[in-house]
Amino acid sequence: MHSIGVIRTPFREQAGTPIQPARAGDAVGTVILEDAYTPALKDLEGFERIWLIYLFDRARAWSPLVVPYLDREPRGLFATRAPARPNPIGISAVRLESVQGSTLTVRGVDVLDGTPLLDVKPYVPEFDAFPGSRAGWFEAGAGCERLADDRFERPCGRDSTGQG
Amino acid sequence: MHSIGVIRTPFREQAGTPIQPARAGDAVGTVILEDAYTPALKDLEGFERIWLIYLFDRARAWSPLVVPYLDREPRGLFATRAPARPNPIGISAVRLESVQGSTLTVRGVDVLDGTPLLDVKPYVPEFDAFPGSRAGWFEAGAGCERLADDRFERPCGRDSTGQG
Repeated sequence: MHSIGVIRTPFREQAGTPIQPARAGDAVGTVILEDAYTPALKDLEGFERIWLIYLFDRARAWSPLVVPYLDREPRGLFATRAPARPNPIGISAVRLESVQGSTLTVRGVDVLDGTPLLDVKPYVPEFDAFPGSRAGWFEAGAGCERLADDRFERPCGRDSTGQG
Repeated sequence: MHSIGVIRTPFREQAGTPIQPARAGDAVGTVILEDAYTPALKDLEGFERIWLIYLFDRARAWSPLVVPYLDREPRGLFATRAPARPNPIGISAVRLESVQGSTLTVRGVDVLDGTPLLDVKPYVPEFDAFPGSRAGWFEAGAGCERLADDRFERPCGRDSTGQG
């Protein structure tokens, strides 16, 4: 696994960063791929949304139970979207505004500035959209908190590739 | 990045494997996590669907343009879900049938038997479901082909971690 580009956003630290694109509102970011990947962006502009697959490079070590931003109870890590995972891979469905050369402008971006990009995929409703799905504890208590705090940052957090 | 478990499915080779869970119908698979991760599965059963994040371990080297299973035109790789990517990471939203110890039973699974698991995330419609999204070339020609052929397997394909 290696970085194929970088995601630039207005968010410099975990505290205050939106939780998931759906709660990131109109935050605009840019995804800057390395030049070698420009030809692989052909046809992407036909998609309204794309998946950004990226590394949670500032996540601390994982633990089996976490108290998510959206809840007050300890939950199994795999039942959350918390960054501190055995393999710190994040996925976010963002709105694609434009493609210019090797730069994508996206809207509703919810990641920290400087996040390493691993992959870009088209969002395809037939494969990805299941609007009625039952969503466990998210359905009960969720809805209030829309911004992260610092609970998943390393206590002494500095840059790190974080690759597990 | 390291495997945290394995996905067992009825599909032994790329040819004949469904393209995406939405086209995998009722194919049942099991996801067997290493025992160390069992406590992290708490609360997962409340979710109707989960994301499996996995390694395309039998994909060949990536190229910027590919002819997808669902089309006849060369498309930019990042505008496709083809396995042969710079970082061969796959994501599939599958239906969660049950959780027993460290084993998940899932339905609508579309990956090769023995695929290494990297992560499990809950499917949350608020974050993940955008049913009306415009889907580029998928909307035009797609719909006929529902099974993969062998075009993304390595010509001399054998097991490999495939980690880029």
